[in-house]
Amino acid sequence: MYAPDCVHATLELLALVMVAFELCMKLRWLGLNTFIRHKRTMVKTCVLFIQFIEAIVVLVRQTSHLRVTRALRPIFLVDCRYCGAVRRNLRQIFQSLPPFIDILVLLLFFMVIFAILGFFLFSSNPADLYFNTLENSIVSLFVLLTTANFPDVMMPSYSRNRWSCVFFIVYLSIELYFIMNLLLAVVFDTFNGVEKMKFKSLLLHKRSAIDHAFQLLVRRQRPDGVTLKQFDDTDIVIPQRPDGVTLKQFDGLMRHYRPRMSARDRFLTYKALNQSVTDMLSLQDFYKFYEVIGLKWKARRSGEHWFDDLPHTAFLIFKGINLLVKSKTFQYAMYIVVAVNGIWILVETTVWNSDVSWSRFVPWSYVVFLTIYGVEVMLKITGLGPLAYFSSGWNLFDFSVTVLAFLGLIALAFNMEPFYFIVVLRPLQLLRLFKIKQRYRNVLDTMFELFPRMASLGLTLIIFYYSFAIVGMEFFADVVYPNCCNTSTVADAYRQINVTIGNRTVLQEGYYYLNNFNNILSSFVTLFELTVVNNWYITMEGVTSQTTHWSRLFFMTFYIVTMVVMTIIVAFILDAFVFRMNYSRKNKQEEALEDPEGEKGIVFEAEVSRAEALQTLEFYKHTPANSSLSSLHQVCVLMERSGHSSVVFLGRRSRTKSDLSMKMYQEEIEEWYAEYSRGNLPHLGESPESDLDCPVITQHSTN
Amino acid sequence: MYAPDCVHATLELLALVMVAFELCMKLRWLGLNTFIRHKRTMVKTCVLFIQFIEAIVVLVRQTSHLRVTRALRPIFLVDCRYCGAVRRNLRQIFQSLPPFIDILVLLLFFMVIFAILGFFLFSSNPADLYFNTLENSIVSLFVLLTTANFPDVMMPSYSRNRWSCVFFIVYLSIELYFIMNLLLAVVFDTFNGVEKMKFKSLLLHKRSAIDHAFQLLVRRQRPDGVTLKQFDDTDIVIPQRPDGVTLKQFDGLMRHYRPRMSARDRFLTYKALNQSVTDMLSLQDFYKFYEVIGLKWKARRSGEHWFDDLPHTAFLIFKGINLLVKSKTFQYAMYIVVAVNGIWILVETTVWNSDVSWSRFVPWSYVVFLTIYGVEVMLKITGLGPLAYFSSGWNLFDFSVTVLAFLGLIALAFNMEPFYFIVVLRPLQLLRLFKIKQRYRNVLDTMFELFPRMASLGLTLIIFYYSFAIVGMEFFADVVYPNCCNTSTVADAYRQINVTIGNRTVLQEGYYYLNNFNNILSSFVTLFELTVVNNWYITMEGVTSQTTHWSRLFFMTFYIVTMVVMTIIVAFILDAFVFRMNYSRKNKQEEALEDPEGEKGIVFEAEVSRAEALQTLEFYKHTPANSSLSSLHQVCVLMERSGHSSVVFLGRRSRTKSDLSMKMYQEEIEEWYAEYSRGNLPHLGESPESDLDCPVITQHSTN
Repeated sequence: MYAPDCVHATLELLALVMVAFELCMKLRWLGLNTFIRHKRTMVKTCVLFIQFIEAIVVLVRQTSHLRVTRALRPIFLVDCRYCGAVRRNLRQIFQSLPPFIDILVLLLFFMVIFAILGFFLFSSNPADLYFNTLENSIVSLFVLLTTANFPDVMMPSYSRNRWSCVFFIVYLSIELYFIMNLLLAVVFDTFNGVEKMKFKSLLLHKRSAIDHAFQLLVRRQRPDGVTLKQFDDTDIVIPQRPDGVTLKQFDGLMRHYRPRMSARDRFLTYKALNQSVTDMLSLQDFYKFYEVIGLKWKARRSGEHWFDDLPHTAFLIFKGINLLVKSKTFQYAMYIVVAVNGIWILVETTVWNSDVSWSRFVPWSYVVFLTIYGVEVMLKITGLGPLAYFSSGWNLFDFSVTVLAFLGLIALAFNMEPFYFIVVLRPLQLLRLFKIKQRYRNVLDTMFELFPRMASLGLTLIIFYYSFAIVGMEFFADVVYPNCCNTSTVADAYRQINVTIGNRTVLQEGYYYLNNFNNILSSFVTLFELTVVNNWYITMEGVTSQTTHWSRLFFMTFYIVTMVVMTIIVAFILDAFVFRMNYSRKNKQEEALEDPEGEKGIVFEAEVSRAEALQTLEFYKHTPANSSLSSLHQVCVLMERSGHSSVVFLGRRSRTKSDLSMKMYQEEIEEWYAEYSRGNLPHLGESPESDLDCPVITQHSTN
Repeated sequence: MYAPDCVHATLELLALVMVAFELCMKLRWLGLNTFIRHKRTMVKTCVLFIQFIEAIVVLVRQTSHLRVTRALRPIFLVDCRYCGAVRRNLRQIFQSLPPFIDILVLLLFFMVIFAILGFFLFSSNPADLYFNTLENSIVSLFVLLTTANFPDVMMPSYSRNRWSCVFFIVYLSIELYFIMNLLLAVVFDTFNGVEKMKFKSLLLHKRSAIDHAFQLLVRRQRPDGVTLKQFDDTDIVIPQRPDGVTLKQFDGLMRHYRPRMSARDRFLTYKALNQSVTDMLSLQDFYKFYEVIGLKWKARRSGEHWFDDLPHTAFLIFKGINLLVKSKTFQYAMYIVVAVNGIWILVETTVWNSDVSWSRFVPWSYVVFLTIYGVEVMLKITGLGPLAYFSSGWNLFDFSVTVLAFLGLIALAFNMEPFYFIVVLRPLQLLRLFKIKQRYRNVLDTMFELFPRMASLGLTLIIFYYSFAIVGMEFFADVVYPNCCNTSTVADAYRQINVTIGNRTVLQEGYYYLNNFNNILSSFVTLFELTVVNNWYITMEGVTSQTTHWSRLFFMTFYIVTMVVMTIIVAFILDAFVFRMNYSRKNKQEEALEDPEGEKGIVFEAEVSRAEALQTLEFYKHTPANSSLSSLHQVCVLMERSGHSSVVFLGRRSRTKSDLSMKMYQEEIEEWYAEYSRGNLPHLGESPESDLDCPVITQHSTN
């Protein structure tokens, strides 16, 4: 059924050769010196080397052995272009480690002290198996730290002497409620500091890049017909030269920096940057480069609505719908419908008869509510126009839930049973109720903003899971099964047997044999259970009873590693929310002005007159490599047709963490800039290469 | 055995009459209007009224009934002078409630949605008792929120379909890892804001008090013999008048404000305030009033050591000891001894034979180490002088642990068995090792600083415990006992029976019947177990199976209440530590200069020349009510004897949170003052009466 080991090994060898090839390319590219000094690449090389040897050993011996090194494979995965976020997380985790370890030592120290105390206090009780040896005592207190065995570990001694509870209360108060929170505080603090340093480093890098690019651009211009060559030294800008960047130079830069940008957008970006009266960009203008670079440009609509150009009757109808959809009454009516729907679902579920299969029977209420939602979606799309409608995240959510529900209904009509869970999704509609309150909107918006970062944290966690799953599978595959652990203290959880209690016979089913390391999926589920920590000691003790007591090391290490990652996640969520709340407090007025439905993000304006447009078009026609002029043509055509003498373009992008940070650290940023311009570029971290959100303008981009 | 109910009721009635008497006094003092508007007093009155009626009903019926109102009794306790800190905590909890409740609603909403989903997905499985009704489904997911039933609740469905784990993983990810952290973030944020507002309010109150006092003091002076009467309007200081406060005026203020302060200290405080060249305090000087008011004054020692005045031989010996004790070598030698001791204890415990009773047998190593510690303590006390030695918290700790260990040894010698736990305390010596690293010193110092506040939070928690314990005792006393709950799903935990497994007979002992509400102590332990939340559903289900399923309401309410309090505690610890770490980052230089052994706190200096001292003495002799002049006499005598022409006095106090806040919010404070001086006193919270760390100078104090 399975391919023989030699096939596996050959395939692996092939894959490894590919990785080796990639590494060789890198070596050629970077040169030996950089290659050796780059930590990540060196680790990769070592791991590759070990795996090579192992694969060959397997091939020679024709049999697989205990191969824990497979757990190192994620290193190859992490070292790729798309895992930058994961690498960033890993770096953050490593940066938070030193203070974390300090507090961890304090934690373990108290644990050992209490273990010794507990051993002396409770080992005289033969019924107390938790403290009968020093090792058990330490393990019990380690588990107690996670509260997983809590009242149980206390009960034998408590039943003997009621005051023994003091020991456990003091232990938990110190360890769980104090030091564990301290851990969080320390990580939170480090995290905050690291985030700020990263932001500062990025900001100053950007500024130095802009300074550099500006000087290069200015130097390439030929002031008063004098050729550039004679000034070609590395000094500051020379006064005779024009003190700014012309459109031509800027366009040249942009064509290298963003090759796919259309000529219109390049021109508009230039316009957006150019705040001074002159025709050129000053250095101050140029500093905003990174703020405008990501903007998406769109002409401001002359009218408000998409249906302005329709015939009068149609216009009136759509206008009516538009007004209806935008009215408070309509919104609150919908809220009431959703609330009624919610109550209805609750009542229906309570009185639901389990004999009727849900997947066969559709209650009329479901159809009624779905119709209402459908009509609402139609009205909103027609009233607001599809573009405006789908630009709001909330509407998108409404739309997809409604469509999914319709799909579910269709699936039901065709008796496709596996789709019935779609029908079950309908309570999600209720989530709309949370739009009413500002705080919920904030929370949910932040949730969506955080999502990419959360996903990368989740991915980091999964990589750790993978490594532990491999180790677990190598050591603990197939060690637990029903009735495996009858000699251990957790026998009940693995028992599957007919038991006679009094005079009744019942099947006692302990399901814990399902929490095993038999395959990668089961391992992941088991590791998730270990992450949640409740009852994790049952899994640990079950495995331990079938192997050696060194297995506990695996479980304890896993707990500590997940504790680190989880603490980072908590710190991250805390930081993000506290940051956002501070931010919205700082900009309360601005927030109040904002459209409550959809966040506006960052908006820049650029007005283009007809003469300007034609002039620019002319200019572009003379420059070589004139790519995508069609967009600029369109602008002219648009102006011709509408008869307006100028068009206002709006450039939008969503607000990023960096924008928020700019506002938050305003004062400090001034200080940093001052520091920077005094020439002492402060510590900018190690290679910022993978930390940058956008590529830095480098010298060759202007050539 | 118990006194009849009527005796209880009579006693209670007596106590209530006393409370009523106190309330009447308060009514007379405050006047009806203030009395009615004061919320806390009104609540107290209502509670008193209800309890009166109840006590009378009990007296009339001669039998006690279900008396849940007893749970309200802590209100009487909280409303006393010594519970200010608890009241402050309660206020902070109530202030954090609105955002907390918002997020809680989100949490419960998702819970209900998932409960409905879970019900539809899993109720078809007859083996799955967790989701067989909607109510069970909700309860299961509520318990799952606390992770207390984790892998178990998943197991029945997981054994049927492996993909059902997705439901639980998604639920836990959203609820436990996201929304619960959000809850913490929201509380943390509110907490931060409240702390800052409180500080601001206190600061501005103090400033306004100082302004007021200064004006009053200045107005009472008679400039150029002109009597005060003719200027007696409420306007600003009039220019002809001397623009400051003289010692005489200041002394008058102090005699009312701090009646027990000695004349010397009053004079020194004046000197410390007086930074200007003139003889009078300017308003700027006067603003420091609250900073210098708590100082403890002491003459700076002419020599460094306590043994300077001893004969030469003794001096040399003590000087040698002093140098030895202060040397790094000695310190590190002691660290090594402690570390060796730690390892020794571990090894000894591992090889310990449990047949030898610890309380009878003293290992020689114990005596050896104790001797070393004893010698160290002696050397340090003689070398540094008792005063310097005991002024450091760490030394105090060393001393008490060592003395306790000696006491334990003596107790052992006299065969006093109950003292054996003192012997067990010896691993505490190992805590000294943490002095080596700066971070640990910081952590432990902060721990000590936080202690009073933590204690008051603990007290608040205990008050909640008390209320719940009373309710629990009223409803659930004596409902659980061994083998009580054989019909419930948690029967095992209460079982105490011989069970036949295969062909072996074992005593299955479930200890959970010990977690009951039979008396107040058991209730407290049970409630602590519920706070830790692991396996709390066993207690809940046990009680529920013996009463009605409405009992769950009690347990769930308790969980939510402790969640609030616990979140506040976590937020408090987070806040305190992050604050302190920020602070020490801001003052890194200053910290580096500080003595690593003992924190210096705030120090003020005041130099007193002999002429000045005599002059002041003369001045005091002429003022009426010259209390405690002896201290001033002593100063003069001291100067006579030593022959110095002046003595420098040092005023010290430990650093408070308020001092730290002053440093942290420096810039904002300037803004606040500016705002304040522009006349618009910002929102200062409600009655700050109980929030103030020190009494405000009120107008009558200068009369």
